[in-house]
Amino acid sequence: MSRVQVAKPPEFVLDAWSRAELARVEQALSQWVGVDAPDGLGEAMRYAVLGGGKRLRALLVRAAFEAMRSGAATQDEKTQAALEDMALRAACAVELIHAYSLVHDDMPCMDDDVLRRGKPTVHVQYGEALALLAGDALQAFAFELLTPDDGRAGAEVQAALCRLLARAAGSAGMAGGQAIDLASVGRTLDLAQLRRMHELKTGALLQASVLMGAACGAGAMLSHAPAWVALARYGAALGLAFQVVDDILDVTADSATLGKTAGKDAAHGKPTYVSLLGLAGAQAQAQQLLTEAQAALEASSLPDTRALAALAEMVVCRSS
Amino acid sequence: MSRVQVAKPPEFVLDAWSRAELARVEQALSQWVGVDAPDGLGEAMRYAVLGGGKRLRALLVRAAFEAMRSGAATQDEKTQAALEDMALRAACAVELIHAYSLVHDDMPCMDDDVLRRGKPTVHVQYGEALALLAGDALQAFAFELLTPDDGRAGAEVQAALCRLLARAAGSAGMAGGQAIDLASVGRTLDLAQLRRMHELKTGALLQASVLMGAACGAGAMLSHAPAWVALARYGAALGLAFQVVDDILDVTADSATLGKTAGKDAAHGKPTYVSLLGLAGAQAQAQQLLTEAQAALEASSLPDTRALAALAEMVVCRSS
Repeated sequence: MSRVQVAKPPEFVLDAWSRAELARVEQALSQWVGVDAPDGLGEAMRYAVLGGGKRLRALLVRAAFEAMRSGAATQDEKTQAALEDMALRAACAVELIHAYSLVHDDMPCMDDDVLRRGKPTVHVQYGEALALLAGDALQAFAFELLTPDDGRAGAEVQAALCRLLARAAGSAGMAGGQAIDLASVGRTLDLAQLRRMHELKTGALLQASVLMGAACGAGAMLSHAPAWVALARYGAALGLAFQVVDDILDVTADSATLGKTAGKDAAHGKPTYVSLLGLAGAQAQAQQLLTEAQAALEASSLPDTRALAALAEMVVCRSS
Repeated sequence: MSRVQVAKPPEFVLDAWSRAELARVEQALSQWVGVDAPDGLGEAMRYAVLGGGKRLRALLVRAAFEAMRSGAATQDEKTQAALEDMALRAACAVELIHAYSLVHDDMPCMDDDVLRRGKPTVHVQYGEALALLAGDALQAFAFELLTPDDGRAGAEVQAALCRLLARAAGSAGMAGGQAIDLASVGRTLDLAQLRRMHELKTGALLQASVLMGAACGAGAMLSHAPAWVALARYGAALGLAFQVVDDILDVTADSATLGKTAGKDAAHGKPTYVSLLGLAGAQAQAQQLLTEAQAALEASSLPDTRALAALAEMVVCRSS
């Protein structure tokens, strides 16, 4: 996690906020993931999910939840506790989807990576068959987390969260983007095609994280509300910015800082924002997207969007 | 599909009922699957799902829907149409989960099968990477189908369906059973362990199909209602019976009839109901489970369980 301290407003410190939020998310993941799975599978699931990563998606859920709640009517304590619980579940669910995608992505038939965050990848540690199953089970578990049977949270929120997550993960989202990525090996993409690929491959789940947090904050899916539309715009801009910065760091950072092999895209002849726009062009693009994200937060008219603003800045200004 | 004609009550003919139901399910699948996916991915998804299989899970959804509806209070036309639509979506969703599990199961790191229903398996046809992604996308799409945003069906039914499906597909269901299966290669399982494995691996999704149909019929998840409990028992018995009969057919049928390699379990030294109970013992067990399923339908007190009864009989009396 970068140590950017956001200037506006002065009392909000991203680092402290993130630490507190992540402690809850990590604890929840540790408490929930793989515990009712058969031995080997549960272990592989936990290995894939626990103890690692920036948890950007979880933080976006939590930040959007807080932002939306800051603009919502006061609710009774019970409703508020139930929505708080759902926001924690949603934060975990997006991380489960992200984790499963990494497990499958690392497999020999995809990127064939043996290390992830300095540890052997799941298929290296547990074999390919169990890695495949662990990924599959993590995806299912994301939807299980979103639909608790305790009657606390309203069905409307649960259905909205499943709807948002399923679309973001599937063929019109993450999996679709990966398929475009696969098909584009050895081809040239123009900027519009590159953008489309990333909108699906990483953007959809990042945007869904924002909207899932917003759905928990509002207690429903409010597709036509101005704040909802604004947060969708924020999520889209942030999602693209994330990828542009990823492409920049692939060129400017070293492997140790990145925690993964730098220069890999160029070595594989993959089109990136840097290869298409140049380094300065890509940097300008990232700044432009940050401005768009900030403008969207302004337009939301939500009283407190500090965490969302700080996360957007962090995404663009990060060094790893 | 077997041509068993069920004697009680005389006017219900499974074959005619199935044909009509399946026509709707096949049409819906063809209309929905892979249409908003990038080219290659959409094709692989459709190849995996369309045109094949007995669709037992879809039929169970539809049959349980009809049974539950036969015992429900009359609803207004709009509600009824919405629930009918959800039952069709649920029937498709369970088939999507089943199809994705076959795609991943056939991959080289799992069963390494090159043929399925006489056609090349998905990874043979489209490559392993796309097969992996197609499976992943089909799982996500199942949940997308269950959460339409058209405001017609109630959120309560949508959330209940996602809950039932996620549990049945995940680590405490299908994926968990597959992991136990993996771990049991070369080991001896006793009857209780074999039963546990199959309860998860195939039973959970078959039972969930019944309960998802019931949830659509009732307009909600009624975990404590007597009819719900009875249908859960029916689903459990039918799920086990399905596997016992599978094991019997592996010994008694030829590959052409089965549409897959007969004698495979014995050749792989896998424990089966036949290897543990003997052929006659396994046949007695299948009959016993059929009796249990029928008793559960009696106990449900639902006015019309003919389709469910006929499906149970079909499962036990089938020859392929």
